[in-house]
Amino acid sequence: MIKKTISIDMDGVLADIKQSYLSYYFEETGICIDENDIIGQREADCVPDKTAISRYLHTPGFFRSIPVAKDAQDVVKELQNYYDIYVVSAAMEFPTSLFEKREWLQEHFPFISWKNIVFCGYKGVINTDFLIDDHIKNLDSFLGRGLLFETFHNVTEDRFERLKNWNDVHRFFITDLSNKVMNL
Amino acid sequence: MIKKTISIDMDGVLADIKQSYLSYYFEETGICIDENDIIGQREADCVPDKTAISRYLHTPGFFRSIPVAKDAQDVVKELQNYYDIYVVSAAMEFPTSLFEKREWLQEHFPFISWKNIVFCGYKGVINTDFLIDDHIKNLDSFLGRGLLFETFHNVTEDRFERLKNWNDVHRFFITDLSNKVMNL
Repeated sequence: MIKKTISIDMDGVLADIKQSYLSYYFEETGICIDENDIIGQREADCVPDKTAISRYLHTPGFFRSIPVAKDAQDVVKELQNYYDIYVVSAAMEFPTSLFEKREWLQEHFPFISWKNIVFCGYKGVINTDFLIDDHIKNLDSFLGRGLLFETFHNVTEDRFERLKNWNDVHRFFITDLSNKVMNL
Repeated sequence: MIKKTISIDMDGVLADIKQSYLSYYFEETGICIDENDIIGQREADCVPDKTAISRYLHTPGFFRSIPVAKDAQDVVKELQNYYDIYVVSAAMEFPTSLFEKREWLQEHFPFISWKNIVFCGYKGVINTDFLIDDHIKNLDSFLGRGLLFETFHNVTEDRFERLKNWNDVHRFFITDLSNKVMNL
């Protein structure tokens, strides 16, 4: 049987980029922002200095040091038993991120082959059955079924099915599927 | 009208990588190999030292210095009037090449947006109407219409329509199309 294919975004999905935004801001200013206080903010507005996020995104080392999202490793590893998993990141906007993102994946997701990694600009060119992404613009351009991974900047969006965290990804792709099969 | 989409490979198609193989070998050994003498050879066998090509591919700076294929710039620029052009390179195998390839494109093809660049491992995940590539394995996995761009290592392949050079790409996508439209 041919496996269904799932594309998974990096920043905000595999990688907990909001933690890095807040850590970098704390390092720079000494001001500690609670992650609950940024819910509903746009990415660029999640710290008071509106130039900060763009500056961090262009800082060498930024993408290499982002913490892995909670439970992402275990769930992706299990998903690989049932699906072909691709990591698809719109990394091309930040050229210095390319090597860092490749190294980050090698460290944290060594069980994902280089053959299953895609760095692009526009996700409409990606041909998989599903895309898990935190950005509406990527889900909008995607031709398959888009699933919104919840993070602070997308809590008011309602146009795509929402996965609240990696346990929810597990439920959607594994638990619910098993229940369906068992009820056949 | 929605434009048809064309994916274009880098090494061996936009970039004349065989020239770099032969230049690097000449630099290393002082032995000059004529490009006509490697026709029909596999890539790894195009110089007498069978370890050399792999070594060059892992040498920092190698991908950054490859010369542009003859006529590629002019033809790609013209193709953009009629098609959505994507550059799709299986760069993921060589992590150090990622940044170099991005810079190379910025220098030689600045008219291609970062949104239209894809670095991947497996081209079966790319959803465009056409793929121009010099490697059969990429054309085999591709879901759209594959076109073989001629180079020394693929002269005996006959499973895909062959484009001998960039003038031939122009003929296929522009001249022949104009003739068809005029004869309607």
